[in-house]
Amino acid sequence: MSEPVRVALLGCGVVGSAVARRLQERAGEFEARIGAPLQIIGAAVRDVEKPRPESSLSHDQFTTDAKGLVARADLVIELMGGLEPARELLLHAMSSGAGVITANKLLLGENGPELYEAAERSGVDFYYEAAVAGAIPLLRPLHVSLAGDSVHRVTGIVNGTTNFILDKMDRTGAELEDVLREAQELGYAETDPTADVEGYDARAKAAILASLAFHTRVSSREVHCEGIMAITSEDIRAARMTGHVIKLLAICERVTDADGDAALNVRVHPALMPRSHPLASVREAYNAVFVQTELAGELMFYGPGAGGDPTASAVLGDVVQAARHRVSGGRGPGESAYAGLPVQSIGSALTRYFIRLEVDDRPGVLAQVANVFGAEGVSIESMRQGVARSDTGRATLHLVTHEATDAALARTVDLLRVHDDVTAVASVLRVEGA
Amino acid sequence: MSEPVRVALLGCGVVGSAVARRLQERAGEFEARIGAPLQIIGAAVRDVEKPRPESSLSHDQFTTDAKGLVARADLVIELMGGLEPARELLLHAMSSGAGVITANKLLLGENGPELYEAAERSGVDFYYEAAVAGAIPLLRPLHVSLAGDSVHRVTGIVNGTTNFILDKMDRTGAELEDVLREAQELGYAETDPTADVEGYDARAKAAILASLAFHTRVSSREVHCEGIMAITSEDIRAARMTGHVIKLLAICERVTDADGDAALNVRVHPALMPRSHPLASVREAYNAVFVQTELAGELMFYGPGAGGDPTASAVLGDVVQAARHRVSGGRGPGESAYAGLPVQSIGSALTRYFIRLEVDDRPGVLAQVANVFGAEGVSIESMRQGVARSDTGRATLHLVTHEATDAALARTVDLLRVHDDVTAVASVLRVEGA
Repeated sequence: MSEPVRVALLGCGVVGSAVARRLQERAGEFEARIGAPLQIIGAAVRDVEKPRPESSLSHDQFTTDAKGLVARADLVIELMGGLEPARELLLHAMSSGAGVITANKLLLGENGPELYEAAERSGVDFYYEAAVAGAIPLLRPLHVSLAGDSVHRVTGIVNGTTNFILDKMDRTGAELEDVLREAQELGYAETDPTADVEGYDARAKAAILASLAFHTRVSSREVHCEGIMAITSEDIRAARMTGHVIKLLAICERVTDADGDAALNVRVHPALMPRSHPLASVREAYNAVFVQTELAGELMFYGPGAGGDPTASAVLGDVVQAARHRVSGGRGPGESAYAGLPVQSIGSALTRYFIRLEVDDRPGVLAQVANVFGAEGVSIESMRQGVARSDTGRATLHLVTHEATDAALARTVDLLRVHDDVTAVASVLRVEGA
Repeated sequence: MSEPVRVALLGCGVVGSAVARRLQERAGEFEARIGAPLQIIGAAVRDVEKPRPESSLSHDQFTTDAKGLVARADLVIELMGGLEPARELLLHAMSSGAGVITANKLLLGENGPELYEAAERSGVDFYYEAAVAGAIPLLRPLHVSLAGDSVHRVTGIVNGTTNFILDKMDRTGAELEDVLREAQELGYAETDPTADVEGYDARAKAAILASLAFHTRVSSREVHCEGIMAITSEDIRAARMTGHVIKLLAICERVTDADGDAALNVRVHPALMPRSHPLASVREAYNAVFVQTELAGELMFYGPGAGGDPTASAVLGDVVQAARHRVSGGRGPGESAYAGLPVQSIGSALTRYFIRLEVDDRPGVLAQVANVFGAEGVSIESMRQGVARSDTGRATLHLVTHEATDAALARTVDLLRVHDDVTAVASVLRVEGA
């Protein structure tokens, strides 16, 4: 096992605490996947006395000396937000050879080009999966997995707050102000919702997406931006009448300019979308990004766009990757990374069954059939009798079970097949996703 | 610039040809992203005389000596399929220190554990993004981006042929045999459809997904598998009556066994799903994988599951990654990788507008309004007049334009705002995704 990888946390709010807790609770798992232990050398905060029990960090791990902390770290995780001092600290970390992970979309949108360049000059890892579309693994696929393809266009719903508002307006017919107030009460919108509803948050993400998808360097200042404040219930109704829904979109497209040269068009604005489009069905505060490429065609990535745990998931994926690079150059994680979990037989699977039976149409049959299930400990969720056929004297039964082991369900079906009152077991299918 | 990376192609069918052509046509782009040129040193085929113009390879690049070719390569791209000699060649490549990229799901399903171990022992890259869900960047996100999270469950529609059949049955009410015949005529199903309809293809993919998602080693032989041949139109109808749709699912879940120990349950079978589930709306031959994790929550990846170009996209992403590892240890690709494309102003964007106008309700107004658009060179796609209000003498007009530059559209709207017949421009929204 290699030397510990020294990790510095900048900021310890909701996401930072979730990251710190996970790194400690699953220390063994991280060590196995990385090939070396991760050691949190400290968390830089503004006030060391503020209690943060949810971080699982001890009091002496907090410091106000962010710069001193960064100087001792192999990996710096920046979750403080804002432009300064985050920018300065990250540049400092990079120049001292530390890998950097951040979820700071504002900073990346504003100063991305400067940071990308600094990371490259220093030859350090610089990851920010959490900065766009929260937990959705999107940036690495876009930049790495599609590196042999050519992206034509990225169309994203990348702001959960505005999607929640527009979705609610679409479903209830309410006016924006009322829905915004509700979103604030539910915690989906900030007290000052400007960054979301004016599209600034989406604009920063559009700049990041365009930079990655087109291997170029785009800053927020180059992104045209319109928010949703002008959208009325009348607009939503008019859209609905023509089979459309209104979404706030971040659009990054590769175009050919008037001289025939390649250029980018990057913009954020509300737009009508046909209800049949995959993005149209993205509800509530979810995010989704639709990618069109030359070879792959149409791809979509979908998931939660915000929240402490989802954002921590993205940050921690970046941490593992950067730490592995540091330890072993990014290659295989070593045998110990394998959990080696045993694979169960199907009989142990907990599933639900949908069963279609043909039975004799006479009193007492339902109870008889139900008894067969009960005897095997399988609980019935619903039982519905179809139309009885007077010509054959038989009726159809549709049954759906609660979850049980597949073995118990299979035994039940075997018993039904030879049951006197059951003419035929017409169909046995599992039920998933309920 | 570094030495060229020597690439060997094993197999040169539809996917192999697409890969070879792209590597040659975009040689400069690949070189910039990798930091060294890629050199195709040859393609191993069974018959060197068979013409393959779509590969853009010259006659003398084809060879029947696959083993000799592998011995000279830095990267081996295996697209021949089948178990042998693919397995032997890949083990040979790994032991001689070459990175390996394959789309061979059958081989990975069957001999994955042996190959994963061999790659690790040799310390070489071993990538197979194309083996599951074709073009969808899925395996790297699952294995790398979620490495700090814990996957609970992966539920995938990973076989396009069976999804095409079940979707068609659901939409038309037809019987499986008829739809299968149609799928064969359309090229969505093979002449011998066994591997698809019996679930064997999905089973191999389930083994690969389980291996990656749970950092363990699962082979096809451990995966319970049921195909779709028993599904009848009556099943589809019964599912539909209760708000369900039938899909062939590959399910990999982490479970706790009777002794309280962690275990995996990996299975392939048709199942009823509620129509509200994100997977239920996956139509035709598309693939999608739904992932549930502890921190990120619910994620979905969606895209084409097969086809020459989509599969080539996934293979080429792996090629870039493996080649970069070889050249620079996987870090930043060097300044030259940046396309540095200029970002256009919004005025140059080609968009469509939806415009809601309030106009005087009298003859000739429509023509007047239409003239304003015409004068700016903006073509109207549709124009619809709402109910006229006799009390105000005004009517509402809904217009949708064809694509035009945003500048021309903005000028048109400016003219409408001051037009004598237009009382108000109530709303101007862009239209996307049509």
